[in-house]
Amino acid sequence: MNKIIEKLEEVIFGTETRAGKFFDVLLLWIIVGSIIVVMLESVQEIREQYGAVLDFFEWSFTIFFSLEYLLRLLISRKPVAYATSFYGVIDLLATLPTYIALFFAGGSYLVVIRAIRLLRVFRILKLTRQVSEAQSLVRALISSRHKIFVFLGGVITLVIIMGTMMYLIEGGENGFTSIPRSIYWAVVTITTVGYGDIAPHTVVGQAFAAILMLLGYAIIAVPTGIVTAEIAGEVLQREIQLRKEHKSCHVCDTDDHDSNDKFCKHCGTKL
Amino acid sequence: MNKIIEKLEEVIFGTETRAGKFFDVLLLWIIVGSIIVVMLESVQEIREQYGAVLDFFEWSFTIFFSLEYLLRLLISRKPVAYATSFYGVIDLLATLPTYIALFFAGGSYLVVIRAIRLLRVFRILKLTRQVSEAQSLVRALISSRHKIFVFLGGVITLVIIMGTMMYLIEGGENGFTSIPRSIYWAVVTITTVGYGDIAPHTVVGQAFAAILMLLGYAIIAVPTGIVTAEIAGEVLQREIQLRKEHKSCHVCDTDDHDSNDKFCKHCGTKL
Amino acid sequence: MNKIIEKLEEVIFGTETRAGKFFDVLLLWIIVGSIIVVMLESVQEIREQYGAVLDFFEWSFTIFFSLEYLLRLLISRKPVAYATSFYGVIDLLATLPTYIALFFAGGSYLVVIRAIRLLRVFRILKLTRQVSEAQSLVRALISSRHKIFVFLGGVITLVIIMGTMMYLIEGGENGFTSIPRSIYWAVVTITTVGYGDIAPHTVVGQAFAAILMLLGYAIIAVPTGIVTAEIAGEVLQREIQLRKEHKSCHVCDTDDHDSNDKFCKHCGTKL
Amino acid sequence: MNKIIEKLEEVIFGTETRAGKFFDVLLLWIIVGSIIVVMLESVQEIREQYGAVLDFFEWSFTIFFSLEYLLRLLISRKPVAYATSFYGVIDLLATLPTYIALFFAGGSYLVVIRAIRLLRVFRILKLTRQVSEAQSLVRALISSRHKIFVFLGGVITLVIIMGTMMYLIEGGENGFTSIPRSIYWAVVTITTVGYGDIAPHTVVGQAFAAILMLLGYAIIAVPTGIVTAEIAGEVLQREIQLRKEHKSCHVCDTDDHDSNDKFCKHCGTKL
Repeated sequence: MNKIIEKLEEVIFGTETRAGKFFDVLLLWIIVGSIIVVMLESVQEIREQYGAVLDFFEWSFTIFFSLEYLLRLLISRKPVAYATSFYGVIDLLATLPTYIALFFAGGSYLVVIRAIRLLRVFRILKLTRQVSEAQSLVRALISSRHKIFVFLGGVITLVIIMGTMMYLIEGGENGFTSIPRSIYWAVVTITTVGYGDIAPHTVVGQAFAAILMLLGYAIIAVPTGIVTAEIAGEVLQREIQLRKEHKSCHVCDTDDHDSNDKFCKHCGTKL
Repeated sequence: MNKIIEKLEEVIFGTETRAGKFFDVLLLWIIVGSIIVVMLESVQEIREQYGAVLDFFEWSFTIFFSLEYLLRLLISRKPVAYATSFYGVIDLLATLPTYIALFFAGGSYLVVIRAIRLLRVFRILKLTRQVSEAQSLVRALISSRHKIFVFLGGVITLVIIMGTMMYLIEGGENGFTSIPRSIYWAVVTITTVGYGDIAPHTVVGQAFAAILMLLGYAIIAVPTGIVTAEIAGEVLQREIQLRKEHKSCHVCDTDDHDSNDKFCKHCGTKL
Repeated sequence: MNKIIEKLEEVIFGTETRAGKFFDVLLLWIIVGSIIVVMLESVQEIREQYGAVLDFFEWSFTIFFSLEYLLRLLISRKPVAYATSFYGVIDLLATLPTYIALFFAGGSYLVVIRAIRLLRVFRILKLTRQVSEAQSLVRALISSRHKIFVFLGGVITLVIIMGTMMYLIEGGENGFTSIPRSIYWAVVTITTVGYGDIAPHTVVGQAFAAILMLLGYAIIAVPTGIVTAEIAGEVLQREIQLRKEHKSCHVCDTDDHDSNDKFCKHCGTKL
Repeated sequence: MNKIIEKLEEVIFGTETRAGKFFDVLLLWIIVGSIIVVMLESVQEIREQYGAVLDFFEWSFTIFFSLEYLLRLLISRKPVAYATSFYGVIDLLATLPTYIALFFAGGSYLVVIRAIRLLRVFRILKLTRQVSEAQSLVRALISSRHKIFVFLGGVITLVIIMGTMMYLIEGGENGFTSIPRSIYWAVVTITTVGYGDIAPHTVVGQAFAAILMLLGYAIIAVPTGIVTAEIAGEVLQREIQLRKEHKSCHVCDTDDHDSNDKFCKHCGTKL
């Protein structure tokens, strides 16, 4: 019995063995499948025609996730620790929506339930844990988080000021019906999204908008500069680290030799 | 009496003591609150339903700011210096709009008053003074300001030429009714905002617009490159600074030696 | 006979001789010409007026490409290797569409045929093989492909979550008729394209969209940072490489010494 | 007489003397003024009301520019060299439009004339010659021109392929009436401008457009990376240049001393 549990633990929690790897990839595809089913169900024509098939898949996925969750609880050496961990909670929430939809069939409630169901997506993120590159990206973002917060604070201040000014300049008849809506326009403009659902009509407003755009053009450089310097800095540091691991000469103390140098390049002593 | 004033100065002007910190954070929240009230008041439905409540909050905020301003004037050791400083003027302007709106109740005047009231937002900027990261960002922007001005000058010249050409190509019937309006279109296009309120309709105009976009695509790289090089350069300089701080001389106190230096480069003492 | 074949091989496959260079450039212009003909043919007014002329050019190009393909097959020393290589398959596919359109004249089939014909465009890429700069660009992109994949994975996850939430918030009456359509909107927004064909109308939706835009604003920095660090890193490495090539050892031929090295670091010989 | 000509040459061509500087700045403001007059004249309401005033200004500017051109010709030591130089031709062209408009008063011709008049804008560029920063920007762009050409070539190929595919997928009823128009859409999309005048309506088209946008999102990083690496590289090279100018020790030949080092850091010898 213990052997079966050990084996199962290796398959479900582990990622080193072949079976464990296969289970993880299978799980990933099932998660992707369940997301696609939810997506297809939201398209009216598909829902009307293939509603029964989609329902079948949805229930299959739900039952699979439920069994998987129970198995994880049973097998885990520290079930409470697992159940209260981030992924434990996500695993539980991923199984619930379909059941809840069963008892509370009211349409309006379903909307909220689907939002929870959506969290299933986070399980895909498990994948990224294996990719070491993701960590270096996240590290670069984390070490520049202060700069980015300051930058976002500045952008938000600018957007509030610009939005209020445009509300005063353009006014409600040109679509700038309130300050929050004008701020929404300022965000749409400074981020260069530019839907065009709200656009300045007066000459002063257009001149003002042009200034905001050119500002945004210069400002967009800042976050890029921050993140690039951070990533480039990490590359530089790795380079320096490598250099420091070089051999040093015991005679003349010169220490910047490459690891494959055989003789001191300063005094010719054998290393 | 002097003790109370000293205590108050510590709380209102200072940021080191616990009370001073609390006062600053409280002030910040009140400023944010007053901005939100102004925003909500601009939404017609909310103004009609909760006008009285918003008025109450506005007056509370105004009285708070007035008392705060008077207190700052009374407590400050150099009241004139404070009153004529940047933040002193902002503090005064932040209290005025509601009073002015009282005496000159004409609707059209109110609009201008609200624009002044908006300056209250700048007080949030006090926060950034504490964040050292903001300074390094501002420093990077300042040291690259010449390059950015030259760049903006080039963009403005390009936009004027392109705008005039599109005015000639497309003409008034396609929305390009005047050169300033065509320049506004060129800014909207080159900054990749692209509202779509004005868009080329002729084949020549569309070909021309496509060239402008690809140009903008290549040009957007320039400010990013400038700022990134500046920020990365600062990181590099700090790195070099750190390396030099390895060994210090015990005789002349020169401390920027490399780790493999054997003699002080300033006085020749053996390290 | 062998001499003629050798000469022809030099002209058609080679790029070193004057004739070979001329043939390559001629080929390039013919490919560009055939693409322009396909483009012009798609414009209804031009097709109606100059249909016969365009047909003549199309057949001329097709015959030229067919002869060229046969010649390549005949001349090549390894005809099978050529025919099964990437460019061999492209060369063949480039000749087929016009012939197929002859036998299966049905309008609906033509659409698919034109898509194959389009592959002719890839032949232009031959040009880039000669430009060494292209290789360094491709190298930078390849060595950062893992980071870019991780990044795109994160963006896709974000876009799915944001799209689903907007579907729940805005609903079908505001254009967000299904989750796939809402995801399409999220992509349009986060990439700052912003067509405006779908745009949020509710206050909550606009607030949500504003957050997504500011996120996209910060996120756009990441791929730029990755690629820049990669390109800059290559420049740095070349710089280091250059420094090491200063002195070479006359005994063991090791040539990566710094300019201030006195002894060969490989064999200890005095430089 | 010679003295007056010399003085005038100093003022008109020179920029070192106070009078020469004043003349240049005056010229700049007059050019800006003449551009503003052309802009204002293109606005129908202003033209109808202030047409006479604008005409007066236009003639004043034209006469000023004519006199200036004649004076430059008379004073210059090499009049032919000046007249055939880039700025000489621009100076001449800047004076012509108003005269030509006098003799050939046909409305349709005027349009072409205004396009020439526009060249006057280039004279502002004289300003940038004095700013040394502009040169470093231009140098960075020039040294990365090969990479940018290759990149633009790749983008144009991608845009042609994507445009043709969207023409086949969406077709004329959704706005994609011809391949050139579809390519225009692809440029609008990949550069993230996104007017929204043409937008995909089918599900396949929207999926395709989403892929193009994400591609554009990753691609936008490339030109930025190129220019940034170039600018950063220049900064790095300056750094290395500075280091190379350091002092070297005449005893032990160590050559990486700072310019303010007094003793060799390796052997302690006085430098």
